[in-house]
Amino acid sequence: MNISRFTDYSLRVLIYLAAAKETSHIITIKEVAERYQISKNHLMKVVQELSANNHINATRGKNGGIKLNTAPENINIGQLVRSIEQGSTLVECFGKDNQCVITSSCQLKRMFAQAMESFFDCLDQYTLADLIKGENKAALRQVLMIPIE
Amino acid sequence: MNISRFTDYSLRVLIYLAAAKETSHIITIKEVAERYQISKNHLMKVVQELSANNHINATRGKNGGIKLNTAPENINIGQLVRSIEQGSTLVECFGKDNQCVITSSCQLKRMFAQAMESFFDCLDQYTLADLIKGENKAALRQVLMIPIE
Repeated sequence: MNISRFTDYSLRVLIYLAAAKETSHIITIKEVAERYQISKNHLMKVVQELSANNHINATRGKNGGIKLNTAPENINIGQLVRSIEQGSTLVECFGKDNQCVITSSCQLKRMFAQAMESFFDCLDQYTLADLIKGENKAALRQVLMIPIE
Repeated sequence: MNISRFTDYSLRVLIYLAAAKETSHIITIKEVAERYQISKNHLMKVVQELSANNHINATRGKNGGIKLNTAPENINIGQLVRSIEQGSTLVECFGKDNQCVITSSCQLKRMFAQAMESFFDCLDQYTLADLIKGENKAALRQVLMIPIE
């Protein structure tokens, strides 16, 4: 069972921006990619999507950068993961190319849909703010080398 | 978000055997693969695992075949999926080759572990018997071409 790298990286970008919220320096995709030691190209697509969904604000050009567009308290983890994963295929019967012969008389899809709902419901309890509170924020800043001003 | 083909196929084999429980003819891997129109090679590994876990009984040789080793009521879907998926990596931090730099100060793993538990808890409510009861059993037998004796 796994969730997409796209979701994983989306969360990483948001955690970075939330941990760096009070710093005045301009954060770039390059910086985030370097600190996480992950592909800048992948992050560009992730940033594009997060920007399209108004979670972050991305500006281009010489002094361009990315920052959160809303308070971390307003970014719900369940809703975010749900929105990215909604097109994914948990099992074949959820997909467009479903060829399973028993689909019409099978109860598995309903059962799995219910279990997926429980998964997301659990994540619905959390916002981005829960990921960066207290000691965690300081620790994240340290490991991500975000200057404390 | 997806679960493995191995889990999907394991469930298909069990559904087949449960739907065919009262028939006297010997069921082979070849038959199951043909009816589902899926790879016999994949099914062989699945059957091996289901047999190792005592869910099914597999006998080799000329008159060899596969059958359920226990009543469908005793095969819990949550426990089954859990046992197959337990080694999978929901996100990078669950894996052996985890290289995410924020792991030590990140709350995501705990959050996702809790959500996964909710997913399995939901499936724990069902047994194989729930998948083949009433009209479903007749419909499954028809679509899988299992003779009704």
